[in-house]
Amino acid sequence: MIVIGVTADYGLGSRIAEHMGAKYCRFFSKVFPDGESYLRLDENVRGEDVLLVQSMAEQQDKRFTEMLMAIDAIAEAHANNIYGLIPYMAYARQDRRFLDGEPISARSVLGALHNAGMSKLAVIEPHKEEELSYFKGKSIAIDVMKKVVRGAVEKTGAETLVAPDSGVSGRVKGVAEELGVGWDYLEKKRDRNNGSLSIGKGLGDLSGKKILVVDDMISTGGTIVQASGEALSKGAVGINAAAVHLILADGAYGRIKNAGVGNIFGSNSTGSKGCEMIDVSEDVAAALSPFLVD
Amino acid sequence: MIVIGVTADYGLGSRIAEHMGAKYCRFFSKVFPDGESYLRLDENVRGEDVLLVQSMAEQQDKRFTEMLMAIDAIAEAHANNIYGLIPYMAYARQDRRFLDGEPISARSVLGALHNAGMSKLAVIEPHKEEELSYFKGKSIAIDVMKKVVRGAVEKTGAETLVAPDSGVSGRVKGVAEELGVGWDYLEKKRDRNNGSLSIGKGLGDLSGKKILVVDDMISTGGTIVQASGEALSKGAVGINAAAVHLILADGAYGRIKNAGVGNIFGSNSTGSKGCEMIDVSEDVAAALSPFLVD
Repeated sequence: MIVIGVTADYGLGSRIAEHMGAKYCRFFSKVFPDGESYLRLDENVRGEDVLLVQSMAEQQDKRFTEMLMAIDAIAEAHANNIYGLIPYMAYARQDRRFLDGEPISARSVLGALHNAGMSKLAVIEPHKEEELSYFKGKSIAIDVMKKVVRGAVEKTGAETLVAPDSGVSGRVKGVAEELGVGWDYLEKKRDRNNGSLSIGKGLGDLSGKKILVVDDMISTGGTIVQASGEALSKGAVGINAAAVHLILADGAYGRIKNAGVGNIFGSNSTGSKGCEMIDVSEDVAAALSPFLVD
Repeated sequence: MIVIGVTADYGLGSRIAEHMGAKYCRFFSKVFPDGESYLRLDENVRGEDVLLVQSMAEQQDKRFTEMLMAIDAIAEAHANNIYGLIPYMAYARQDRRFLDGEPISARSVLGALHNAGMSKLAVIEPHKEEELSYFKGKSIAIDVMKKVVRGAVEKTGAETLVAPDSGVSGRVKGVAEELGVGWDYLEKKRDRNNGSLSIGKGLGDLSGKKILVVDDMISTGGTIVQASGEALSKGAVGINAAAVHLILADGAYGRIKNAGVGNIFGSNSTGSKGCEMIDVSEDVAAALSPFLVD
């Protein structure tokens, strides 16, 4: 097995390779003046099983296209099996047709990867595990939420986990019980017309409590900001946030900090700056090993 | 037949539809704060043959991904056949493996389009016609060089066409003979180590001549700048440039203008600003009609 970073693996690939006892290398890559990407692998992969690692956390379309090209290059170089690990999968939230005339973008992405020649795919914390069925080979979703939350709880001393909406509350409850801390959740209501957020079910009393707001991902940060405000109003004295995927689009970092959040914890599925990154390579390697030999 | 612009058709789609007597509409599109694209088609395409038009002249990876999503949306909406027209195809120059470890990027792009559900594909002036064989459905390359050059000759009164390298000289010769103007060509030499250009075979005497430098595409403009300098040194008095595809990356427009080129002519396969765009929709429609009913 050779683990190969494509163009964006944020150091995760080399750590996974170390845990798996596999060799690690990276594609050489550059972007031409017109914007096209160029890839080249300076490594003999003939007859080898290869795990390509590519996160799609920023420049999503470019990262996706580069992943397709990497598969082509590896196949052209006569590798044996081509496997993929996507630390953060773009377009995962468009996993069904919400309105007539929409694409199922997750299907476009996953279908293309398999058709290009990838036989197995692992995705860290996809939006929904079921959507991986759009990938027609074998697939696995890797859950690293507990790892991230455990790391954040250890560093912050948080006594209560807060799920910022009901969708993630079941998982947060499970993690809280495993870690032996308290938990609570909000229900948010989003206005279908203008997209604004309000609170359906609020939080209970948090007087004097250190809390950790936990979500699967943080994108524009609106959900975290809302939960932070609600927690402060209920007496919380220390607020931190944790999510598996830190996208932090469009000034989210500043907005979250301004809302009273101390630190933002996340996995190294993305390369978000200014955050506390928790290495999940050991968990990912442990999940990959049986999956890839299966 | 319904002609549908995806996110970048530079007005070409609607003109083609007019020539073909077909309906035209466009996808609604936006880009989310995190950078992901959103597409939706507000049109009933059930049972219809659909021609998707998408140029990949800038933000190549995004345009490509959007094309895949458009195919998904159209298939999901129960269209009959899904055809594609790519006015400018990205990654066309990486049409073979030049060095070990490289992908054949053109194969990645064309393979994904067919696998997504596109059954026929037309490309205006691909880098090489043969590369369209990577598309496993029916394909056609549409040649509009004569149309562009004719328009540029009419507007500039150019008496001699100049091919800036030997690769395009055969086509320029053919166009010159059809239009009844003179022609000449350069041979350029590119240093394999540092990429710098020098002249192998120069131009003949051009004293007092108005010339038009003709290429298939202009990207960084180095080739055009070199040809312009050579033509000036041989006495040319008016220099204009024409190419099917105007990419004009990385400040090429200014560089070409500074080299003494009056106007830059191109087809509406791209949306380059400050250039003289020549509408090729009639030629494209004429080539498409027999191909799509075939």
